[in-house]
Amino acid sequence: MKKVLIAGAAGAMGQKAVALVNGMDDVELTAVLAPHMADDQRAKFQLGPDVKIYHSLDEIPEGAADIWVDFTIPAVVYDNVKFAIDHGFAPVVGTTGLTDDQEDELIKTSAARHQGGLIAPNFGMSAVLLMKFAKEAAQYFPDVEIIEMHHADKKDAPSGTALSTAKLIDQVRPAHESSPDEVSTLDNVRGGDYHGIKIHSVRLPGYVAHEQVLFGGAGEALTIRQDSFDRQSFMSGVKVALEKVLDLGELVFGLENIL
Amino acid sequence: MKKVLIAGAAGAMGQKAVALVNGMDDVELTAVLAPHMADDQRAKFQLGPDVKIYHSLDEIPEGAADIWVDFTIPAVVYDNVKFAIDHGFAPVVGTTGLTDDQEDELIKTSAARHQGGLIAPNFGMSAVLLMKFAKEAAQYFPDVEIIEMHHADKKDAPSGTALSTAKLIDQVRPAHESSPDEVSTLDNVRGGDYHGIKIHSVRLPGYVAHEQVLFGGAGEALTIRQDSFDRQSFMSGVKVALEKVLDLGELVFGLENIL
Amino acid sequence: MKKVLIAGAAGAMGQKAVALVNGMDDVELTAVLAPHMADDQRAKFQLGPDVKIYHSLDEIPEGAADIWVDFTIPAVVYDNVKFAIDHGFAPVVGTTGLTDDQEDELIKTSAARHQGGLIAPNFGMSAVLLMKFAKEAAQYFPDVEIIEMHHADKKDAPSGTALSTAKLIDQVRPAHESSPDEVSTLDNVRGGDYHGIKIHSVRLPGYVAHEQVLFGGAGEALTIRQDSFDRQSFMSGVKVALEKVLDLGELVFGLENIL
Amino acid sequence: MKKVLIAGAAGAMGQKAVALVNGMDDVELTAVLAPHMADDQRAKFQLGPDVKIYHSLDEIPEGAADIWVDFTIPAVVYDNVKFAIDHGFAPVVGTTGLTDDQEDELIKTSAARHQGGLIAPNFGMSAVLLMKFAKEAAQYFPDVEIIEMHHADKKDAPSGTALSTAKLIDQVRPAHESSPDEVSTLDNVRGGDYHGIKIHSVRLPGYVAHEQVLFGGAGEALTIRQDSFDRQSFMSGVKVALEKVLDLGELVFGLENIL
Repeated sequence: MKKVLIAGAAGAMGQKAVALVNGMDDVELTAVLAPHMADDQRAKFQLGPDVKIYHSLDEIPEGAADIWVDFTIPAVVYDNVKFAIDHGFAPVVGTTGLTDDQEDELIKTSAARHQGGLIAPNFGMSAVLLMKFAKEAAQYFPDVEIIEMHHADKKDAPSGTALSTAKLIDQVRPAHESSPDEVSTLDNVRGGDYHGIKIHSVRLPGYVAHEQVLFGGAGEALTIRQDSFDRQSFMSGVKVALEKVLDLGELVFGLENIL
Repeated sequence: MKKVLIAGAAGAMGQKAVALVNGMDDVELTAVLAPHMADDQRAKFQLGPDVKIYHSLDEIPEGAADIWVDFTIPAVVYDNVKFAIDHGFAPVVGTTGLTDDQEDELIKTSAARHQGGLIAPNFGMSAVLLMKFAKEAAQYFPDVEIIEMHHADKKDAPSGTALSTAKLIDQVRPAHESSPDEVSTLDNVRGGDYHGIKIHSVRLPGYVAHEQVLFGGAGEALTIRQDSFDRQSFMSGVKVALEKVLDLGELVFGLENIL
Repeated sequence: MKKVLIAGAAGAMGQKAVALVNGMDDVELTAVLAPHMADDQRAKFQLGPDVKIYHSLDEIPEGAADIWVDFTIPAVVYDNVKFAIDHGFAPVVGTTGLTDDQEDELIKTSAARHQGGLIAPNFGMSAVLLMKFAKEAAQYFPDVEIIEMHHADKKDAPSGTALSTAKLIDQVRPAHESSPDEVSTLDNVRGGDYHGIKIHSVRLPGYVAHEQVLFGGAGEALTIRQDSFDRQSFMSGVKVALEKVLDLGELVFGLENIL
Repeated sequence: MKKVLIAGAAGAMGQKAVALVNGMDDVELTAVLAPHMADDQRAKFQLGPDVKIYHSLDEIPEGAADIWVDFTIPAVVYDNVKFAIDHGFAPVVGTTGLTDDQEDELIKTSAARHQGGLIAPNFGMSAVLLMKFAKEAAQYFPDVEIIEMHHADKKDAPSGTALSTAKLIDQVRPAHESSPDEVSTLDNVRGGDYHGIKIHSVRLPGYVAHEQVLFGGAGEALTIRQDSFDRQSFMSGVKVALEKVLDLGELVFGLENIL
């Protein structure tokens, strides 16, 4: 039975993680890190009587858990993950806010200590598989465009997942010359361009979070699409991470790299 | 039995029109206008022994047909359609190349003579219905974006049908304020903009000619999509035109306006 | 300013209707029918100080409103709608449970009294427009199949909207011979059959409520799709009904018939 | 430079293969097997002056090529492939008609001789990748349904690719209990059932050959779709086979297994 500590257990995502762990057979919630949680709030936060409630890093003893699930906030995530690696917890991190330098340093430290772990900007399995498959398909179909569709309230474009997908495709697809002689009679109609990969962002009310990757070849097309209707979807990826993180030898970036 | 003359009967589209008319019950091919067609080529061009073959406008007598189907070339289309209207033929015109001024003049002349007819830039029923439905839906869903997808050899963007769709929507949708505070971290990713309607053009090998209109509202979405796999599709619209053109009182622009 | 009474104002849908009316410019909430609502619960139920709260039909005076919005329960809907018609309220009914006989009788009564009204099994504008467009397209594309996709918890199939769509198509499409010599090597793989229209029902977790109507013709295809992500979507149709119901001369069945 | 012999070089697929090989940099067409091809037909069949034309197996010397591409007919495919394996050619076989017993025997023989090769029922890369990705995704999304759509002239259902996809998914997905209490109010509407995986077959004019695999999970969905518009699409997979077949140690079944 793997023991799990959840940092940020009182938050929305943290509570989903508590429910997930409580419902799994081969992992057990042994502790939470939650600065403002009182002992009489166990029922409210779905905690059994034996779960330890810690309010700060210095209260947490070695061996309190095998896995450190982190859904906290940008301001503390670096300290948390560093603490986890230094004290033998395998971090599973959904919190954003680490800089590239911090990530590099944490990966290096984890490798030196042979401490496995996972940092994932997106735990939604449909998005993660879309990225993985898109990278693989691009080796055979170098002609590819991306369309992402989000609710009208999302003010930035493109989505992080769409840009990540383009970057993954760019790593593998064969050298590719796009039509240099295209003519647009309406400005910008051919979309954004990431190293020759066109990205189109749609913003409409009603929509939630959706992405399509379109590949075309002689006489055929391949399309991979994912729809996220609800943040509940993140928990499928956390489940996979809980099952696999203890087999890793260092901190890995991206859930798609441990599938 | 309605009598039909086909101008441009030797061309690719003209030959499809010949096959269409030959296969219909209530119309009859009585004549063709084909400058270079010889009398011994009837079998090659699917013409029965009684079909008159004319080589120029001045050979064509009044009453040679009720309907004048025109799949010729831009250089002659104006003279042809004017001739048809002046001599009591109801024109069904798929040839491009008329200027806006020429169209206006022909419509005026046809109205004065109570001579019905149809000019259609697109006879594909799926595209025509898409435009019609999009215009209707926009009254209830003012939030709309258009995605068109064509083969990589199409060098211009957006497609004519996509732009026509945006213009039709623009005529009817309620005044609409788009998000003024959108931020694009990749230039052009939000696509082209026609009066606030975003248009996205995809170009990929394998694809043929496809268009989607996406509507979003609170908690729901409506999508209308058409796929043209083959120019054969144009004939479904010509058939509808043949059935309805004799009931019109003047020259009409756009098949969607007689459905 | 049109005056509105909402029957069932304390329920989930009723509350959405209250919010809708409160947010509209040209209609005004003047009364609710809510058997168990106390006067001190106005804030909880979004009611202003001047809104009358009635607990039974016999308390409601003539002229309490122009329009009667009904989101109640099957057990009372017939009595409510009959009362509305008899007392000069234009009913807008989203409650299910009326029998065919009851509907026929109410329509007859309303016609005799020149009392407009609307009964709609589905107020989602995307579903209503899908049905309307599908009926229209089937006149030109007699070859059509329907695919509906719902969450795995929906135990019945096909969905009511899919079946209604098939019935509407069946009313108009030309006589149509399906392939009599099809062979299925896996039982049932060609789906359900309503008068020659194939219907396919998909049930998967994550999905909400979606329907596609697929039309095919020579060289082309037309697809109409609607997605309902949230019951909030019903209110767009209620809004249309509130705008149009006072112009009707009798009780109409189906929102698509007043668009 | 790898040397290629094409058996069935005069047929439609064989000619596409000739064009493919002629257009590749690192392979060279050295011979064809074509029983009825005359030496003065080289231009017609796209053959250079140095390509050997053989009319029967017994004319073909060892070393005539490294790779044996076979697009022939069921009646001869077994003899051809056996000959290829016995004489040191790596077969790339698109011809159908081998029995399961014949395949097993050929695989066994090839393994004994360490002779690589590939037999593929489908060389369309989009279909092959769809199957590969579907198998992989099913490990994370056990809830899955398949929809395939083909032209109305296809008389059998489901398609071979859809059934192959279901079989691949069935090999890997976790034990899965479908809703036992579903109720269909229209017979067969839930489609065909292969070991709990629902398959839906759509047949419409205009469509060519298309397949979708729909996965659903808590709050999300993943869809993989492929469209084959033209048999030209097969050549992308033949190209991959030509690049990889000489690295294989035995005869492999299914292009997806060498990607």
